[in-house]
Amino acid sequence: MNLVLLFEEDLVAPDRARLSGRRFRHVREVHRAVAGQELKVGLLGGRHGRGRVIAMDGDALDLELAFDGEPPPKLPLTLIAALPRPKVLNRVLASATSLGAARIVLLNAWKVEKSYWKSPRLAEENLRHQCILGLEQAGDTVLPELQVARLFRPFVEDALPALAAGSRKLLAHPGVPVPCPRDLREPVTLALGPEGGWVEAEVASFLKAGFEAVSLGPRILRTETALAALAGRLL
Amino acid sequence: MNLVLLFEEDLVAPDRARLSGRRFRHVREVHRAVAGQELKVGLLGGRHGRGRVIAMDGDALDLELAFDGEPPPKLPLTLIAALPRPKVLNRVLASATSLGAARIVLLNAWKVEKSYWKSPRLAEENLRHQCILGLEQAGDTVLPELQVARLFRPFVEDALPALAAGSRKLLAHPGVPVPCPRDLREPVTLALGPEGGWVEAEVASFLKAGFEAVSLGPRILRTETALAALAGRLL
Repeated sequence: MNLVLLFEEDLVAPDRARLSGRRFRHVREVHRAVAGQELKVGLLGGRHGRGRVIAMDGDALDLELAFDGEPPPKLPLTLIAALPRPKVLNRVLASATSLGAARIVLLNAWKVEKSYWKSPRLAEENLRHQCILGLEQAGDTVLPELQVARLFRPFVEDALPALAAGSRKLLAHPGVPVPCPRDLREPVTLALGPEGGWVEAEVASFLKAGFEAVSLGPRILRTETALAALAGRLL
Repeated sequence: MNLVLLFEEDLVAPDRARLSGRRFRHVREVHRAVAGQELKVGLLGGRHGRGRVIAMDGDALDLELAFDGEPPPKLPLTLIAALPRPKVLNRVLASATSLGAARIVLLNAWKVEKSYWKSPRLAEENLRHQCILGLEQAGDTVLPELQVARLFRPFVEDALPALAAGSRKLLAHPGVPVPCPRDLREPVTLALGPEGGWVEAEVASFLKAGFEAVSLGPRILRTETALAALAGRLL
């Protein structure tokens, strides 16, 4: 937690917050906060600043706040990820958020096992929580837009053209000979397949929607590794 | 597992292997292998090929092997990573191996908690196993060279100059204004700090050893995210 992310409901006054629960325990146990100590804070969707610990008991602590900075800019990146296994989903969301993706779409694909769609991790509460962990990691305050697309065709054929308009459209497809481009100074929409990859009909749908199939070479990477490697390379 | 990695001891003849244990269960349960099916295989440290399932019982399966390809080339990357938390160590090793790092050094640093060095995950057996998982993921057969450096100063002052000779030397240090370079077509030695970062004395030691401090911007990324983002960008 490189930033204590505050929510409107934490504010007891415009310059005063009361932390309890997970964040309080983290600040006490990991940051080993004591009265007088300053922590990096940010207001969800808002500014950065410092919070000075002015009181602390066994359940909560009070911070005196001074906001004076802006969160880091988002990457102009829309990530379309085939829904990962539940175990991996949390890491992908936190990682994509920490990298600064402005928008994340979780999409169905042929090789996404149906059971993944029944995971309790898909509850809106959890999706949001994972993004919040990514913000706390990166020192950001602005949640990515998050969208869940349970049907492949309507999303790719009907929604995607507008969503991806004006961006460079890339389909990550390990093994194709076209290397992923570098250092794009334009918005990017990046589609990342499931374990086992996109099937040919899916590739065809993306190509029809104006995507180029690119790869990082012959190595097949896990979703979260590929995502970070592609983001580091593109943007 | 995008490649069934075979060891010398699996070979019952030059063109015949017998799989049991973890790999057998994975091939049966995830690949749903049946007799006649072909699997991508590779011999540890050696060539790629296909293995045709010729027999299978409840405990093992037999493969008929034909080797005809080379593993993907390694990245000319030496990763020096401050020892991560045990929970994260496995992922960092598998991820670095899957990305193709040729050499990985686990290094002590001021902000590495002493308890991390007592983790059973540091057993040579586990370190090697995590690298093997990375090879299976990426379709590689060649283990990275792995080194454990429990003392910071002797490593950085005495061993590092020879280790990093002839390479571009980069110290990942979030927040410094120098952006990490891109698309290096030369060997790279990349030093990645612990959670909480390098302390100033450590930065000074690396700079003295010829390293440049670079960053991916103001965002602070988890070790495995930073590693992949940097590898995708550099190489």
